[in-house]
Amino acid sequence: MIVQYDGSHYHGFQIQQTVPTVQAALQEAIDNLSGEKVSLLFAGRTDARVHALGQVIAFDTGATIPEACWSRALNSHLPADIRVLDSQIVPADFHPRFQALKKHYRYLVYRNPAGAVCRRKYAWLYTAPLRTAAMQEACRHLIGTHCFRSFCASGSSVKTYKRTISQCHLDERGDYLLLDIAADGFLYRMVRIIMGTLMEIGQGRRLAEDVPAIIAREDRNYAGPTAPPEGVCLVKVDY
Amino acid sequence: MIVQYDGSHYHGFQIQQTVPTVQAALQEAIDNLSGEKVSLLFAGRTDARVHALGQVIAFDTGATIPEACWSRALNSHLPADIRVLDSQIVPADFHPRFQALKKHYRYLVYRNPAGAVCRRKYAWLYTAPLRTAAMQEACRHLIGTHCFRSFCASGSSVKTYKRTISQCHLDERGDYLLLDIAADGFLYRMVRIIMGTLMEIGQGRRLAEDVPAIIAREDRNYAGPTAPPEGVCLVKVDY
Repeated sequence: MIVQYDGSHYHGFQIQQTVPTVQAALQEAIDNLSGEKVSLLFAGRTDARVHALGQVIAFDTGATIPEACWSRALNSHLPADIRVLDSQIVPADFHPRFQALKKHYRYLVYRNPAGAVCRRKYAWLYTAPLRTAAMQEACRHLIGTHCFRSFCASGSSVKTYKRTISQCHLDERGDYLLLDIAADGFLYRMVRIIMGTLMEIGQGRRLAEDVPAIIAREDRNYAGPTAPPEGVCLVKVDY
Repeated sequence: MIVQYDGSHYHGFQIQQTVPTVQAALQEAIDNLSGEKVSLLFAGRTDARVHALGQVIAFDTGATIPEACWSRALNSHLPADIRVLDSQIVPADFHPRFQALKKHYRYLVYRNPAGAVCRRKYAWLYTAPLRTAAMQEACRHLIGTHCFRSFCASGSSVKTYKRTISQCHLDERGDYLLLDIAADGFLYRMVRIIMGTLMEIGQGRRLAEDVPAIIAREDRNYAGPTAPPEGVCLVKVDY
C-alpha cells in the first residue's frame, strides 16, 4: 500500500508504547477491517512531525477484500491525517524496506513571513536572506557514493555508512526552497542534517567547497545542525 | 495591525464565551503586554476554521511601546498560529471595518489526492473533474454591483444586500484552483456560497449563464451549497 500522512500529530511512523504513531493507527484500522491482528512492514521510519506522500507498507492478511477496494475500505477506518492512496497484492516475500532501490525525500523551506502560520507544520520557516547559489553548489558535492557518517545522528546502528545519493537538487519556487534528494538509503536523520548543513552554507557560515571535507571527516560533529522535522516529506520509494 | 492566523483551531475571529477565538487570543496577548484591558476593533469576522493573511485590528492603548516594536513584542505573547505582521499608529477615529474600501478573499480548492492530507485544513479537497472554463465564465457574471441576497446565509441582519464585486477570478495553478474575489464588502458566508455555486457549475449541475438568474431571485435557496470554511482566507483589506 502507498500511504500518505500528515505527521504533525504523531510521534513518528514506528509503533511505540503510550504515544500515538502512524503505524499504530494503520494497524488498528487494518485490524478493525480484517478482524485479524496484523503486523506491518514499512519502507522508512519517519521522525515525529515528518510527513509522507509515499510511505510503503505491506502485511499478510487472509481477508478476502478485493485488491482495489482496500484503500477506500481502510480510509473509512483511518483518521483524516492518514490516507491510503493505492494497494496491490505483492509476492509473499516482498519487503518494503529491504527491497527498496531508491527513496525520494523533499525538504521544504518557506521564506515569506506572510502566510507562515498556515505552513508552520509543513516547512521550515526561515525568512532571512540565503545564498541559494552556494547551497545549490553544495548539493552537487553531496551527489555520489560516499561514507555519510558525518550526516548520521547518533543512536543508529548500521553496518555501513556508505550510501549513494543519486539526486540532490535545490530549487527556488516562489516563497519556497525545495530540496529534492534521492538515495539508495538514508541514515538516521540524514535528510535533516544535510538540510541543516545546506542552510549554514546559505547563511554564509560555511562554504559549498567545505562539503567534501565534511564528508571526509566521517564525524557528525563536522556537519551542520539537524533541521526541523516539519520540513521533511518521504515522497516516493522505488522498487 | 495586520494579523495573520491559521483558523483551524478557532471558532472564528469574533470573541465568544467558552470557545477559543482569535479575538480572545489577541486581546489576552495585548492585555498581558500592555497591562491594560483592551477591546479590539477588526475588519472582518471570519468563520470557524477560516484563515487570514491580512486581518486588520485596531485598539486604543496608553502603552508606550514604539510603533514598530509591537509586532515582535506581541508575537512572543501569542500562540504560533497567530502572528502580527505589521503595526502602525492610526487616527483615533480609525475603524478597520467601517473604513474598509475593499476586502480581498481567496478560496483554495486542492485537486490532487496525493498530498491532500497536508492540505486538508487549508483547502477544499475535491478530486473529481471540473469544467473550469464554465466556472471562469460564471465568475464574470458575478462582477459588478448587485443585490447579493441569494449569496447571503440566513442569520445576518444587514441594511442592504447590495455589494460591488470588483474582482472575481478563478485560476488553475498546478493542483490548485484559486478563486480571488474582491468587493467593497461581503455578506454573511458570501465567499463560501459563491464558491459552492461555482463548484456546482464546475460539476455541470448548473450553467454559467444561470448566475444572473440566481442573483435576480434574491433568495438564498437558488444559490449553491456553502463551501467548506477551510478553503477561505481573508487576504487583504484596502483603506
